[in-house]
Amino acid sequence: MKKMYVEETADKVGLEVELKGWINSIRNHKKIVFLDLRDRSGLVQVVGDERFAVLNPEDVIVIKGLVKKRPEKLFNKKLKTGEVEIEAKDFKLLAKAETLPFDISKEELGLTLPTLLDYRSLTLRHPKIKDIFKVQQTIVQTFRKTMTELGFFEFQAPTIVATATEGGAEVFPVKYFDSQAYLAQSPQFYKQIMVSIFEKVFTVAHAYRAEPSVTTRHLTEYVGLDVEMGFIDNWTDIMATAEKLLKDIFKAVEDKHSDILESYKTTIPKITGRIPRIKLKEAKEIIYKRTGRDIRQEPDLDPEGEKEIWRWAQDEHNSELVFVSHYPTKKRPMYTYPDPDNAEETLSFDMIGRGQEWITGGQRINDYKTLTTNIKKWGCSIKDFEFPYLQAFKYGMPPEGGFCLGLERITMNILGLKNIREATLFPRDMERVDIKLSSTKQKNS
Amino acid sequence: MKKMYVEETADKVGLEVELKGWINSIRNHKKIVFLDLRDRSGLVQVVGDERFAVLNPEDVIVIKGLVKKRPEKLFNKKLKTGEVEIEAKDFKLLAKAETLPFDISKEELGLTLPTLLDYRSLTLRHPKIKDIFKVQQTIVQTFRKTMTELGFFEFQAPTIVATATEGGAEVFPVKYFDSQAYLAQSPQFYKQIMVSIFEKVFTVAHAYRAEPSVTTRHLTEYVGLDVEMGFIDNWTDIMATAEKLLKDIFKAVEDKHSDILESYKTTIPKITGRIPRIKLKEAKEIIYKRTGRDIRQEPDLDPEGEKEIWRWAQDEHNSELVFVSHYPTKKRPMYTYPDPDNAEETLSFDMIGRGQEWITGGQRINDYKTLTTNIKKWGCSIKDFEFPYLQAFKYGMPPEGGFCLGLERITMNILGLKNIREATLFPRDMERVDIKLSSTKQKNS
Repeated sequence: MKKMYVEETADKVGLEVELKGWINSIRNHKKIVFLDLRDRSGLVQVVGDERFAVLNPEDVIVIKGLVKKRPEKLFNKKLKTGEVEIEAKDFKLLAKAETLPFDISKEELGLTLPTLLDYRSLTLRHPKIKDIFKVQQTIVQTFRKTMTELGFFEFQAPTIVATATEGGAEVFPVKYFDSQAYLAQSPQFYKQIMVSIFEKVFTVAHAYRAEPSVTTRHLTEYVGLDVEMGFIDNWTDIMATAEKLLKDIFKAVEDKHSDILESYKTTIPKITGRIPRIKLKEAKEIIYKRTGRDIRQEPDLDPEGEKEIWRWAQDEHNSELVFVSHYPTKKRPMYTYPDPDNAEETLSFDMIGRGQEWITGGQRINDYKTLTTNIKKWGCSIKDFEFPYLQAFKYGMPPEGGFCLGLERITMNILGLKNIREATLFPRDMERVDIKLSSTKQKNS
Repeated sequence: MKKMYVEETADKVGLEVELKGWINSIRNHKKIVFLDLRDRSGLVQVVGDERFAVLNPEDVIVIKGLVKKRPEKLFNKKLKTGEVEIEAKDFKLLAKAETLPFDISKEELGLTLPTLLDYRSLTLRHPKIKDIFKVQQTIVQTFRKTMTELGFFEFQAPTIVATATEGGAEVFPVKYFDSQAYLAQSPQFYKQIMVSIFEKVFTVAHAYRAEPSVTTRHLTEYVGLDVEMGFIDNWTDIMATAEKLLKDIFKAVEDKHSDILESYKTTIPKITGRIPRIKLKEAKEIIYKRTGRDIRQEPDLDPEGEKEIWRWAQDEHNSELVFVSHYPTKKRPMYTYPDPDNAEETLSFDMIGRGQEWITGGQRINDYKTLTTNIKKWGCSIKDFEFPYLQAFKYGMPPEGGFCLGLERITMNILGLKNIREATLFPRDMERVDIKLSSTKQKNS
């Protein structure tokens, strides 16, 4: 009697096995009961006698049985175990499930987003939904692997911060004993400090944005894959590192999850050679020439602009990704390094993938005096930045820069999901922290 | 001209190299200047001419020079590069440092804790302090490696939660738009839900405790190494998994960081064979017999009790770790599985290492009805737990359990640090979020 995961039975004809899992579906034919047993590995058909008729979908059971070859005409091509079935001798009920609110055994769940989220603990069990998070985990693993191989050091960034220095309005206040603290909008300041300790660093960090709007691509709590590197020779080293990372991620997803890409009717984003790099100014000119839409006076690309520059990159460079650089100084944070050739522009970039921004990055000001001057110029208080941020610069910070890749954003775009909430296990937004907030609104203390 | 890290020069006599880093110390002998250059890899001595005399500690420079063998009587045994020095041809200043508040080039920094933390961005540069976080990162990496090899799936747990369900008072409220949310005290509920999705899971998650006291072993924000496993055959499987993890961590730290252990004058904790396992009741009897101190009526071990049971484990089992199990039902959370043989006790454990609790874990109640009954018995509201937690149990949850290992706690105990703040890059406590809060106290909005 060998214990195994259900998918392992595919080549175990003749073996007695013990399987544990959930009843994905059950069909009662009086003397004979067919059920699909689901575990983390997949599904297998189990054939039982009338004793099995008491079972219901999502009941948790352990069964003992014999792996048998199915007749060829009954092969199920959709399952990896489709050429076998388990002749069950016996079962034991481990946990009973209540009647389901909807059928989760269908190949496509076909629910609206609110239902998908209102029943998150149940809908996450669906194999196709579960697959999203397998891809996501491969992205995280590849991030760690690539950065470690490139000599970067992983660190743990704190998320409670003393001052709301990065953003202003879009920050969550925390009642911190008798004081007020905030949730970090990113690990930006800490990863810069860490450059003065370990030179090249990365972190997988939760970040918080009190976005006062509900869009298909914003969350209030998200995961950032953050990188920062010191002693850069040229600021384009940062883009080159991001490009290497993206290519490694795509390769890993394709190698490990070709079946998932297929079920989502998608492929990894196409890149031919190097990811094209253009300045924002050029991008706006291109958009004007291609569409007649004039956003040349705008400080940034709007969502339609991001889509058009993606189309251009596909048409002209056979690439679904494109780096857009040299954003205006006044639209980037105070620590962004100005272009030595043109102080109106910065050595900064966004990476647009499939028409959406995935990555933002650039070189940072590393000179203490320039940085403090800029903080004042931006109308901020030196005191708010003094410790621990400015202390790192005061005592010698090498030339440095970095970037951040949004984990949910890249997961969503690789799989072609319509809403970023689908790429998050337990999404938080203005209206939802698991439960819909409107239904439980409380007064703030 | 070969670019490299300073430690790589140890065996590069005769080579022209380019090195980048910080000036750890500088000794000016008029025509000749000696400096120790520090980068992430270590230190090397550089010899320059009078041009170098303008430099100061922590200035960031790039130098070009020739690697030369030192005369044997000038070998520095304390440095890996102690048999060479760099004859510098030239340098370029990358960033200037202001005058340091204290000398950070000493082998032992020798600062008080408040100074260590008030100058965190500077003190983290000290090699011996930096080493703490190399060990910490090895612990995190080994956690991920071991759990992945054991077939566990890593997931991202959210940290903003809708209700303060786990603890009561010791929770941080977050002003969440027009509602109130909280910082998660642990990923407990989410890792349990994930068992119904991926069966065996782990996460490295930030957790938050509004501990209203300042102790040497508590932080308000800490990192938990969390594990949860479904389809357990026996609840002791959970302890066995924790034990395997600990042994792997110790081995990795010993293999990679024997030099750091030596500089901290410590060794990895001793275990002989299996980690001893005793019931709390027995532990209290042992303490009574050994010391005459009677805590047999207490529901838990106090700090002195934890130390005594560590001494016992060393004396009787030659082990610095010990599992203490069967904590009283009324002192454990409502989801803890009661002992079928004695409902007053639970199938739960703590792991005491070197006299402190590192791990807490146990089997959980997986039956929906029992769990809801318990929630009511504990005086809580079903509504607060309904979604997403109870939903996972309503639709079939296998027998399961897990544990959590505090990252800072294990780092501190392996290295023999006196205060948990030393084992945290940027520690947060009641009085400090980087800055000391007393100096900037604000009214809550």
